[in-house]
Amino acid sequence: MWNRNIETFLGCDGTYEESHIVIFGAPFDSTTSYRPGTRFAARTMRAESYGLETYSPYQDLDLEDARVFDGGDLELPFGDTARALDMIHSYAANVLADGRLPLLIGGEHLVSLPAIRAAAEKHPDLAVIHFDAHTDLRDEYLGNRLSHATVIRRVWDILGDGRIHQFGIRSGERAEWEWAREGHTNLRPFTFDGLAGAIEAVKDRPVYLTIDLDVLDPSAFPGTGTPEAGGVTFVDLMKATLRIIHGCNIVACDMVELSPPLDPSGTSTATALKLLREMLLALEEDFIRPQTA
Amino acid sequence: MWNRNIETFLGCDGTYEESHIVIFGAPFDSTTSYRPGTRFAARTMRAESYGLETYSPYQDLDLEDARVFDGGDLELPFGDTARALDMIHSYAANVLADGRLPLLIGGEHLVSLPAIRAAAEKHPDLAVIHFDAHTDLRDEYLGNRLSHATVIRRVWDILGDGRIHQFGIRSGERAEWEWAREGHTNLRPFTFDGLAGAIEAVKDRPVYLTIDLDVLDPSAFPGTGTPEAGGVTFVDLMKATLRIIHGCNIVACDMVELSPPLDPSGTSTATALKLLREMLLALEEDFIRPQTA
Amino acid sequence: MWNRNIETFLGCDGTYEESHIVIFGAPFDSTTSYRPGTRFAARTMRAESYGLETYSPYQDLDLEDARVFDGGDLELPFGDTARALDMIHSYAANVLADGRLPLLIGGEHLVSLPAIRAAAEKHPDLAVIHFDAHTDLRDEYLGNRLSHATVIRRVWDILGDGRIHQFGIRSGERAEWEWAREGHTNLRPFTFDGLAGAIEAVKDRPVYLTIDLDVLDPSAFPGTGTPEAGGVTFVDLMKATLRIIHGCNIVACDMVELSPPLDPSGTSTATALKLLREMLLALEEDFIRPQTA
Amino acid sequence: MWNRNIETFLGCDGTYEESHIVIFGAPFDSTTSYRPGTRFAARTMRAESYGLETYSPYQDLDLEDARVFDGGDLELPFGDTARALDMIHSYAANVLADGRLPLLIGGEHLVSLPAIRAAAEKHPDLAVIHFDAHTDLRDEYLGNRLSHATVIRRVWDILGDGRIHQFGIRSGERAEWEWAREGHTNLRPFTFDGLAGAIEAVKDRPVYLTIDLDVLDPSAFPGTGTPEAGGVTFVDLMKATLRIIHGCNIVACDMVELSPPLDPSGTSTATALKLLREMLLALEEDFIRPQTA
Amino acid sequence: MWNRNIETFLGCDGTYEESHIVIFGAPFDSTTSYRPGTRFAARTMRAESYGLETYSPYQDLDLEDARVFDGGDLELPFGDTARALDMIHSYAANVLADGRLPLLIGGEHLVSLPAIRAAAEKHPDLAVIHFDAHTDLRDEYLGNRLSHATVIRRVWDILGDGRIHQFGIRSGERAEWEWAREGHTNLRPFTFDGLAGAIEAVKDRPVYLTIDLDVLDPSAFPGTGTPEAGGVTFVDLMKATLRIIHGCNIVACDMVELSPPLDPSGTSTATALKLLREMLLALEEDFIRPQTA
Amino acid sequence: MWNRNIETFLGCDGTYEESHIVIFGAPFDSTTSYRPGTRFAARTMRAESYGLETYSPYQDLDLEDARVFDGGDLELPFGDTARALDMIHSYAANVLADGRLPLLIGGEHLVSLPAIRAAAEKHPDLAVIHFDAHTDLRDEYLGNRLSHATVIRRVWDILGDGRIHQFGIRSGERAEWEWAREGHTNLRPFTFDGLAGAIEAVKDRPVYLTIDLDVLDPSAFPGTGTPEAGGVTFVDLMKATLRIIHGCNIVACDMVELSPPLDPSGTSTATALKLLREMLLALEEDFIRPQTA
Repeated sequence: MWNRNIETFLGCDGTYEESHIVIFGAPFDSTTSYRPGTRFAARTMRAESYGLETYSPYQDLDLEDARVFDGGDLELPFGDTARALDMIHSYAANVLADGRLPLLIGGEHLVSLPAIRAAAEKHPDLAVIHFDAHTDLRDEYLGNRLSHATVIRRVWDILGDGRIHQFGIRSGERAEWEWAREGHTNLRPFTFDGLAGAIEAVKDRPVYLTIDLDVLDPSAFPGTGTPEAGGVTFVDLMKATLRIIHGCNIVACDMVELSPPLDPSGTSTATALKLLREMLLALEEDFIRPQTA
Repeated sequence: MWNRNIETFLGCDGTYEESHIVIFGAPFDSTTSYRPGTRFAARTMRAESYGLETYSPYQDLDLEDARVFDGGDLELPFGDTARALDMIHSYAANVLADGRLPLLIGGEHLVSLPAIRAAAEKHPDLAVIHFDAHTDLRDEYLGNRLSHATVIRRVWDILGDGRIHQFGIRSGERAEWEWAREGHTNLRPFTFDGLAGAIEAVKDRPVYLTIDLDVLDPSAFPGTGTPEAGGVTFVDLMKATLRIIHGCNIVACDMVELSPPLDPSGTSTATALKLLREMLLALEEDFIRPQTA
Repeated sequence: MWNRNIETFLGCDGTYEESHIVIFGAPFDSTTSYRPGTRFAARTMRAESYGLETYSPYQDLDLEDARVFDGGDLELPFGDTARALDMIHSYAANVLADGRLPLLIGGEHLVSLPAIRAAAEKHPDLAVIHFDAHTDLRDEYLGNRLSHATVIRRVWDILGDGRIHQFGIRSGERAEWEWAREGHTNLRPFTFDGLAGAIEAVKDRPVYLTIDLDVLDPSAFPGTGTPEAGGVTFVDLMKATLRIIHGCNIVACDMVELSPPLDPSGTSTATALKLLREMLLALEEDFIRPQTA
Repeated sequence: MWNRNIETFLGCDGTYEESHIVIFGAPFDSTTSYRPGTRFAARTMRAESYGLETYSPYQDLDLEDARVFDGGDLELPFGDTARALDMIHSYAANVLADGRLPLLIGGEHLVSLPAIRAAAEKHPDLAVIHFDAHTDLRDEYLGNRLSHATVIRRVWDILGDGRIHQFGIRSGERAEWEWAREGHTNLRPFTFDGLAGAIEAVKDRPVYLTIDLDVLDPSAFPGTGTPEAGGVTFVDLMKATLRIIHGCNIVACDMVELSPPLDPSGTSTATALKLLREMLLALEEDFIRPQTA
Repeated sequence: MWNRNIETFLGCDGTYEESHIVIFGAPFDSTTSYRPGTRFAARTMRAESYGLETYSPYQDLDLEDARVFDGGDLELPFGDTARALDMIHSYAANVLADGRLPLLIGGEHLVSLPAIRAAAEKHPDLAVIHFDAHTDLRDEYLGNRLSHATVIRRVWDILGDGRIHQFGIRSGERAEWEWAREGHTNLRPFTFDGLAGAIEAVKDRPVYLTIDLDVLDPSAFPGTGTPEAGGVTFVDLMKATLRIIHGCNIVACDMVELSPPLDPSGTSTATALKLLREMLLALEEDFIRPQTA
Repeated sequence: MWNRNIETFLGCDGTYEESHIVIFGAPFDSTTSYRPGTRFAARTMRAESYGLETYSPYQDLDLEDARVFDGGDLELPFGDTARALDMIHSYAANVLADGRLPLLIGGEHLVSLPAIRAAAEKHPDLAVIHFDAHTDLRDEYLGNRLSHATVIRRVWDILGDGRIHQFGIRSGERAEWEWAREGHTNLRPFTFDGLAGAIEAVKDRPVYLTIDLDVLDPSAFPGTGTPEAGGVTFVDLMKATLRIIHGCNIVACDMVELSPPLDPSGTSTATALKLLREMLLALEEDFIRPQTA
């Protein structure tokens, strides 16, 4: 009765030791050029997760059977980008070193960079699958090389040509599109068309899946800083995500760019949580199946 | 010139005596576990109804030709669930006893229970068609047997197996889904697939239609307390509703779970009003056609 | 370094002299009967345009290559409808007289009337293509002949039968629909079905394109005063708009009824801006192609 | 049981015949240059009045004992200023002709003009007491002579020098202040200092009291279109209002410029309602006392 | 590093065993007749408490030196008032039985009743000091005897005449005011005048302090369901609270009626947190001082 | 007629050459630990400045007579704190080198640091007067030495003991208060008491005035990230500011921490603008008077 108040994502109340998956929040939005607020995403998702069921009728699986540890939010220094990224890197690297799968909740998209770096350090042959409305391939933005608008370009600095597969993209500078078309990344615009090919292409590699939630159409996901009309539906995104998880060897992943201050009805937070539930169930399923196989 | 200020739903300015249909509001949300606010639904719909036309280009019918009485909102005691349900039951039973069709505007979904009970008392062979994102089949919720999360289970207590047809469902506890699958209800997940079969199944019965508006996708209907991504479109819902009304013998119906505080743009209220207009026109048409036939 | 603060629509920083297209705002919503706020549309779109890229991956064109002048917002007298319309007329007529294409940003739909009048004065054989949720064909509204609800009827006063092509319409009084069906306008309900026929019908005429953004479904565009469920998607609208621009001889156009106070997440403003970008790129393309041909 | 839904201001459920006071709403804000929304004031106040008690501990009086008729909102044509003002004038003149006291709820301040005109037609020696943050003494505004910013100048056109007493004023053009200082009006800036003198000055005249609620400090009344820091407190305003009512011969009055869309917490609406209650109680008290004297 | 995510009120991270004071939340607002939302108060205060310092320059004390346990929010059944009150009673009684001081965060004001009952069971000579805008002395409300509007009357059922001291009151039914004036409670209207007398009157009794935050003026505290203009300032309330704590023998206390959905700027939550900090510091000081004396 | 759209603060339409005062915005909030949004302050103030008069009845002066240049907003790189501060420093230093007075609009309080540094470089004997709710004297915050919470400590690094005068302070860590009390700054808590002494103390020095708008009570200024109850009123702040300007030799100044996303009613923006108007008028007056003397 006299326990302290513990707040976790829905059903993620495993201990670190017993868990396969480690969720943690990176409340960082300092390079956001437009409307900040993604720093509140993980915290708001935790607080609102009591509105969601643990059971998925899509997969007929229940989070109550999963073993997920929620590490809470990192305490990041706002305005000191380099140090914030270091802290995220360190956390992700520790989780990976312990043989667990880190699932990072942003924050702006830049927080993916140190997590991907940690994954690439452990898995040098890493590939990245990237869902987003935006290319994120600028080399610099307002003079900054570390920015939400440059993050996938920085990932390319690590991985090089042909290892990044982008879906749903519908916005960017002309130069970014041309650079992608030169073969640096596999950019599929607007939809998930070509997903099977990408899964085939990465089948022998460890994969990092990074989901910028603004890949969703603004009707389905208004709560984000740079909404782009013409996006995918929730069901499209959920199905694509499950296909990736079941078709690839996911070693780490993230979900970024939910901005609760732009979500007055709470639907975007609820949608992010539902996608998170489906991801956790599918990831956990993959952990369990090989063991029982 | 010196009349008092009368406020009704759009075009619902008939007298009780001359009307076929009686709309009334049940501003009750005391068992809402997540975000309350549905108590304001009927009042807000009335206030906003001047933004809608009385004419439907979908049905080529006009509310100006319909005879609908708006009884206003019941004055329900918040926090005394049993008494509030009694008052709703009494109102609905009186309307039914007078040979009129009650159309209840919630409030949370629990308000449907006493209206369905009244309908089942008059029509012991009643069937229920249920549009919702949620199963609402828990036997109890937080120790409560009377809750928005248990309402259809309580309806089953009245009607028994095979008389409840559920559509659009995409959320619930695993136990609820399993209980439904045991044959207690006919649960069709996610969409309106199977609607023709349900209409056929209830063709010899009086039917109560209960519409939880969160069956709509949150993109189409953000203004509700427990939004569930992956729902139906407005046009889907409108068409399914009209098919039910024209294909079944509707004796009473309701529309619940609009929450105006979660609808800052007013689109959800406008959408609920438009569905209400289409329902009223279709119901009235069915009243008139037999008379002229 | 010491220049004053100039604020324009995204990339619209040409001089008047060098530009083909002249954008200007008409911040007028005095006859709006429901929820005012469209007066803030142009100003808000300018302020938010830094969130959008100048490059379109849909058309592979870049606004940086276009020559568009942004004339800012007219200073209109609120409450003096006649004089406000005169000022809009005067501005549009001047732009047309200079051989440039006026692109008007409303404001409520009534602001289209003086711009269409100016276009019809220069081009007596003008046709109008009209995207909207509402017929706007009342002869008067609350005793007013000049109203957002009568604007297309007033356009008919100028153009007469058969010259107005309406798409996406799904709301109006019965009398308006009947009047349209008598052949006064070519009204296609609900969708863009029939667009090819309309383009064929106007192929020898100068065309004014007027887009009431509430033609979009409220899920895609909540930020408008009279949302009507059952509308088109953004991609539908964008494609229809580009087909019109490339298939017709557009001499003037407008985009009306964005209401920023009803757009708390900013998605409607972003969506309007994206459509504006696509329109500008397509219009500019048509200016340039004949020159190089 | 089967009555239609009547909605009135708190406790204002008298019939026209039996009432001393007639409240009516003038939902007009077409000349508002800044942020519209006052059209919703009367309607919102009615809807929210269930949150207020009928009893005043300040005056130890109860609205249940008062006889007040609520005539609802006039149906005014937006955008046709002249006709809207005519309709307000006509309503107020009728109420005055019947020996009743009209209490007008705005709308923007311009709605006071026709009500004052009606009062001055019946009472040629009328004086006006004016509470406001703004002078409202422009001769024209954006070329308009009929505007919320010119309303008291137009009142001066009717009444001439020395009959207008202004309190709480803290904003205006230099020319307006100079014009007032020339003796055209008795302008007391910032506070209610000098109220006793004004009451003395009008003691032999019928008085119209016009209260622009933005005389309150924005901390006490954020819900208005042109908030001006440095205003009076609610208790100051209530006391000044009661002193005027009990010290003068009030023949008509109004309360304007509440803008519900700018009042997300509802405190401004609640504050306006409380002031209205106190005004009604004090006015009714003055009706009754002479009768019993 | 691998601890679960614990969320407490600012600085309240003591264990139950070592703490003098036990904070707990009662997220219940089922009887709220007007605008619900107080159920979110404790949770929101915890989430926002990182915006406040632990140090008070008013008292020169620091929460880091205090020993306060935060028990989180009770899981109360919405809509089952009796059972919810029982659970609150049980928790408070347990804390009291352990010799600790319960500090309850509402929720609506009705949650105070079971806590006061628990305190009166342990301390039969209990007195209550009550800060509020509203009398809360109805015998029933909408037929309910257990309601936020009857809570102090129910407390009187327990304590009887002369043991309840009310301050800041400015709203209620006439009958409530008359009933209080008959001597059942010591009701001081509008302000804290008479506080010294009340402290003197209760000096030999254990005291329960119940603070309905709407005693504050709406300018200082807009985030509450039934705002009442004419209230006290934050500094007034803080000083009165500290005088009570230091002048009386407080055995339990509460703070109720913060409604986060009505607090879009977050100032009301911040203000409640600041008052809570000052209360905790003063209460802790009184625990420590006697020990060192 | 064909000029581009120029947007400036109210009446600040002078050229750089002819102006005494140069306003510029620093849209930076990357180190904000709580709720970001101050980046929008200057832009929102410009957009809303049409709601304010140019004339001040407090000073009987008119901005139309002032010569103020508005340089717009700097284009700062979010997330790269060092470079952003460099850009601010450079702009302020240039303005100072040209013999003009820079008036910086934040942004978070950290933006004051480079402006003060520029002023101290030109005026080595500079003193700082600081209005704020918070001490801002931490030596580091979350490991950061450059933060909104450390800004005045960094100013002390430049100026040393006894040259910083703080007013209105009511929040900080215990260590900050103790450090101030050791004589490093002259900290006056809660109010402007002691202002005359500070003016006397700095009478022979050039003075930088930095106003963190959260010195205002949240009732008067809700639109800020870390509201602190118990602050000063608008009239207090305006009077203190004018006393400083007229009593000291101001060489540069700023106004920071307005956060428009937290200001749904717009009252905080309007209040900041009004204070800005009064500051500009008083500063300009001081420029002109010596010239004519």
